[in-house]
Amino acid sequence: MNISILGSGRVGTTLAQALAAKGHDVTLGHRDPAIGKNQWQGPPLRHASLADAAAASPLVINATPGDTALQMLQALQAPLQGKVLLDVSNATERTANGMPSGLLYPNSSLAERLQAALPQTRVVKSLNTMLFTVMAAPQSLPTPPTVFISGDDTGAKDQVKALLAELGWLAGQMLDLGGIQSARATEALILMAPYLIAARGLKPFALTVA
Amino acid sequence: MNISILGSGRVGTTLAQALAAKGHDVTLGHRDPAIGKNQWQGPPLRHASLADAAAASPLVINATPGDTALQMLQALQAPLQGKVLLDVSNATERTANGMPSGLLYPNSSLAERLQAALPQTRVVKSLNTMLFTVMAAPQSLPTPPTVFISGDDTGAKDQVKALLAELGWLAGQMLDLGGIQSARATEALILMAPYLIAARGLKPFALTVA
Repeated sequence: MNISILGSGRVGTTLAQALAAKGHDVTLGHRDPAIGKNQWQGPPLRHASLADAAAASPLVINATPGDTALQMLQALQAPLQGKVLLDVSNATERTANGMPSGLLYPNSSLAERLQAALPQTRVVKSLNTMLFTVMAAPQSLPTPPTVFISGDDTGAKDQVKALLAELGWLAGQMLDLGGIQSARATEALILMAPYLIAARGLKPFALTVA
Repeated sequence: MNISILGSGRVGTTLAQALAAKGHDVTLGHRDPAIGKNQWQGPPLRHASLADAAAASPLVINATPGDTALQMLQALQAPLQGKVLLDVSNATERTANGMPSGLLYPNSSLAERLQAALPQTRVVKSLNTMLFTVMAAPQSLPTPPTVFISGDDTGAKDQVKALLAELGWLAGQMLDLGGIQSARATEALILMAPYLIAARGLKPFALTVA
């Protein structure tokens, strides 16, 4: 399957490696593809600019930083047209040491803003409630976590669920919360991150429901 | 142990019954104690006005609705002086059917506002991340949940941890997130409630960390 990933930080890299290892045809979008290709240490895959990556696949994952994602993806409206966009990032202010602090879009969410800005793209929110290491290794935690899914389009959510299964998520661990508006609840969960890390150290975690 | 509970809705009633059953000397504070006493169907305990309940015990639980709690407890500043105040409520706007929607204090929290308004009271936030039925029955869920604790005073948090143990929480299920500021993260978790209930029905739940 052709999958594009926008952003080659820790999140994008983790997802690119996991999906390439599963045999998918992965295009990784970099702000500067020449530098990105040169620095790449994972399995062979296609490197491209963000715009070329957005155009390359029917399913595109947003793994760019949440605080600049809206602006960055608005500029990709044309190549994202008709695509499913899986948004895994969180839009928060950041403390001096990079920890998420306040929500950038209280009483809304990055996913809702993206959906409004990209009406010809089907936005699905998922995987945004955990440390990046857990996204492709959900069975690594002592307690099985839940992964939440928000989106207005059922077909797009089904594609994302199939992708989640490829990443190791069991069907019983996936919880469809309804429309894209429900992303405002899951995006708020990430406010827990700095306190969890202060209390327990940088251990893999997922916010979940018991 | 003398424990007072402010508010005799579902949350206050659940906690009052559980703590009275453990043999504690519970005072339940009502807006109208005559009506409250008359309607009470639980085990025998003391019924009082909110002010008298606040004065009656060294440990006072706020189980009044979060959207009016700040105003209500500010009026109790004198009887709450020197007390430990365990705040279990969440301050949100509400939809027409009573579900929490937006946070009343984004980038802050009810617990922080209470601590600022009641400087002579030691505020601890806990038990605010679950359906009320789980507060006194944490082992009823298929997955053992975590209960989060926030507060500036270690001694006050130790008293709350002892109370949580009485309610059935194991030490390994309690996670101290640090100062009262961390309550802004746990209070935001309740935004999940309407979506969880829509997706799964009104089943007991607790937001937790895996």
